[in-house]
Amino acid sequence: MIRNAALLTDLYELTMMQGYHHYGMHRQAVFDMFFRRQPFGGGFSVFAGLDDLVETLETIRFTSAEIDYLADQGLFKDDFLEYLASFRFTGELWSVPEGTLVFPQEPLLRVHTSILEAQLIESLLLNTINYQTLVATKTARIYCASEGAAIAEFGLRRAQGADGAMSASRAAYVGGAAATSNTLAGMRYGIPVTGTMAHSWVMAFDSELEAFRRYAELYPAKTILLIDTYDTLGCGVENAITVGKELQAQGHSMGVRLDSGDIQYLSKQVRARLDAAGLQDAKIAVSNELDEQIISQLVAADSPIDMYGVGTQLVTGGSDSSLTGVYKLSAKESPDGTFVPTMKVSDNPEKSTNPGIKQVWRFYGEEDYPIADLVACNREEIAGDREYVLYHPSGDFRHTRLSRYERVEPLLQLQMSGGRRVQPSPPLAEIRSKVLSNLDALDETYKRLINPHIYKVSISRLLRQRKQEYLRRYLADANDAE
Amino acid sequence: MIRNAALLTDLYELTMMQGYHHYGMHRQAVFDMFFRRQPFGGGFSVFAGLDDLVETLETIRFTSAEIDYLADQGLFKDDFLEYLASFRFTGELWSVPEGTLVFPQEPLLRVHTSILEAQLIESLLLNTINYQTLVATKTARIYCASEGAAIAEFGLRRAQGADGAMSASRAAYVGGAAATSNTLAGMRYGIPVTGTMAHSWVMAFDSELEAFRRYAELYPAKTILLIDTYDTLGCGVENAITVGKELQAQGHSMGVRLDSGDIQYLSKQVRARLDAAGLQDAKIAVSNELDEQIISQLVAADSPIDMYGVGTQLVTGGSDSSLTGVYKLSAKESPDGTFVPTMKVSDNPEKSTNPGIKQVWRFYGEEDYPIADLVACNREEIAGDREYVLYHPSGDFRHTRLSRYERVEPLLQLQMSGGRRVQPSPPLAEIRSKVLSNLDALDETYKRLINPHIYKVSISRLLRQRKQEYLRRYLADANDAE
Repeated sequence: MIRNAALLTDLYELTMMQGYHHYGMHRQAVFDMFFRRQPFGGGFSVFAGLDDLVETLETIRFTSAEIDYLADQGLFKDDFLEYLASFRFTGELWSVPEGTLVFPQEPLLRVHTSILEAQLIESLLLNTINYQTLVATKTARIYCASEGAAIAEFGLRRAQGADGAMSASRAAYVGGAAATSNTLAGMRYGIPVTGTMAHSWVMAFDSELEAFRRYAELYPAKTILLIDTYDTLGCGVENAITVGKELQAQGHSMGVRLDSGDIQYLSKQVRARLDAAGLQDAKIAVSNELDEQIISQLVAADSPIDMYGVGTQLVTGGSDSSLTGVYKLSAKESPDGTFVPTMKVSDNPEKSTNPGIKQVWRFYGEEDYPIADLVACNREEIAGDREYVLYHPSGDFRHTRLSRYERVEPLLQLQMSGGRRVQPSPPLAEIRSKVLSNLDALDETYKRLINPHIYKVSISRLLRQRKQEYLRRYLADANDAE
Repeated sequence: MIRNAALLTDLYELTMMQGYHHYGMHRQAVFDMFFRRQPFGGGFSVFAGLDDLVETLETIRFTSAEIDYLADQGLFKDDFLEYLASFRFTGELWSVPEGTLVFPQEPLLRVHTSILEAQLIESLLLNTINYQTLVATKTARIYCASEGAAIAEFGLRRAQGADGAMSASRAAYVGGAAATSNTLAGMRYGIPVTGTMAHSWVMAFDSELEAFRRYAELYPAKTILLIDTYDTLGCGVENAITVGKELQAQGHSMGVRLDSGDIQYLSKQVRARLDAAGLQDAKIAVSNELDEQIISQLVAADSPIDMYGVGTQLVTGGSDSSLTGVYKLSAKESPDGTFVPTMKVSDNPEKSTNPGIKQVWRFYGEEDYPIADLVACNREEIAGDREYVLYHPSGDFRHTRLSRYERVEPLLQLQMSGGRRVQPSPPLAEIRSKVLSNLDALDETYKRLINPHIYKVSISRLLRQRKQEYLRRYLADANDAE
């Protein structure tokens, strides 16, 4: 849960809110959150952050100090500040469940509430969902690349601030990490915690051998020795073998960690040395600026690695450091109480929004693998027994027909009503399991690290008609104006 | 200040701490924090985050719930948990002041305290300094590129978590931003807050003109109209001119914002249209995935832009999303109370650390521009009246002589003693002014956005001797072991 979340908002949300308040526009509005392109050049994203968002929305309030601060800005009138002082989020939130695989151009969340409330929560909603979805997606890519080796999230020291670290640990676990080094995240979210030792431990003793021995004495069942402080293939592996055999005599196995140098070469050399010394059950853990591409290369070269510790790249996204999710008005209430679709028109067809209240339907094939998603008008009932025409969301003519599928389900589910959670969030471990089975069901071609097959997200015939009608109307207005 | 900062640590820090505790190694140690390469391919970094770090270190405590959580992990003995329950940071912290321009391979912070305390705070220290320094540096680059136009930080929705957003707003202000859109950061840090309007405001009204008019009515002195919801050069600029002239009649000037399309082309067209309508004092603000390279191009093309709103790239660092700062043991107390230098040796000479307790000296030339930095042993007194030989930190032979300089000063200053702050932090606005004058004094060649001149960070003759002695000793040991 985010503290002081009411004021964690862009100033313009507050100035716009006052405008709606001033002009008596407390009417309902519908906003969609969606993103326009997959991060990391990948073929899927893993939706995460919902539970934190719901928890924050349930408790969002302005403190009196915050109201005083706003009063001092010289922008806000007393009656609006009074409105803020009693502010609650009272709306409806629809969302795909956490752990759902998601794709560009489809709504992931839908907010129905007064336009004032919907506007206030924009920054908070985007901040939470954009970041956690980015990290869960990155982790899922690393998980796929590692082909069964364990992933530990080691990113605390390189994360973007304290909360960046906390929500990264949560999202990394959702995305497939087995454990985190972040102890506070372990406590708060119930994630397994793990770790090895630092170079400073080795350097704090008079010799590497003494440092290894002392560690093994204290943690005989959990010893992973960092062997690259002085010379990995020299004293490092030799001292580890000495201590490993001492542990073996007590009935324990150990591990070593490589944190520098050529990991592929060193892991093979170290494996051979350990095996030759009779330490076949010793594990090899590696770290050092890893990402899914490096791990994929190591796996392809049959590097004997049991655990990958991944930090910077996992918690920041590396070169793709934000999911560019946006939040757009899709419908507004008329004075007569009906909802009128709204549309943002852009010179770039991909940036024009889909007008009106919408639902996303996912079609599944045999063995429950997803085939395609269809964004439809909310009033359309998509039954599981007929053929559908899927239209390209921005192209005018391109479409395909879908008749062979096993089942279809609506993805957007009611999460909050009247500002309260309507269903408990599943435990984090359950969300994680769902992600792993979703990844398992996804066709390999969508999981290629680079240049993957593009999963089809289409719009229904009715939504296409509506979009074209609105587009024509705006263009006619624009031409009239010239 | 970070809450629950004691547990915001990597698990291995705690297991190593227990080891030191168990073996009675409560002796003093010295750790250096430094980074190895400039982010963004740039020529300088702006040091930030110190005040937040000091505030957190002063108050770091384990709660009883946290002790219970650790007890449940099955790793920790009762006497160590009792030690943690009464844990306080009692050490000395030396640091360069916030806002100092810093360079790779020189210590930015130095911690002197028991090795247990020094170990616990590692993750927290790196998390805070790495991220704020990254953002302050990115902002300073954007500031340099914009050549005097105002920079507003708009990154909340794309930041990596809530705290990512908060500390980004702080660091962006330090680095030269004029304002933030993040209202909570405005309140907490006293940063000016700013904003315009969203597309949803325009879409919430029956027409764009009505939306513009209503906004101007409510905020006549602070109206910046977003003109790209439907058609920037069609209805957008026309409606803005209509409202701008109405405001002008009341004695107010306005601004417009461009958020899509070709900003260079559009800003020139819009400027011409505004000027032709007699609105020469209307300002042009722009946004949309800007960074220093794009801004530099816009400036070079004489784009008539008064304000840049920068979000994603500024708060995440874009493709360079972490400063890779590290924290290394440089000296440890012997049983006899003296300090013994320690060194991490690496096959890569640049990754071998500089052993022992050190100070950084900065030499200045005329008009107080920095010439070079010298990392020296702490006991060396660098006087301002003689010639110095500056040795390359990793090369064996390269060195230069420095005799022409105006003054020299030590950069590392005592910030905390006995776990308490020894000097108040300057106000944030003062730190920001210092950054701007530091940037002003820095030679242009170091400020080139790409391929800049490399600022010289050297080591003293004495430090070089010590480093070579330790290196020889380790290599001799390694050869003996073979």
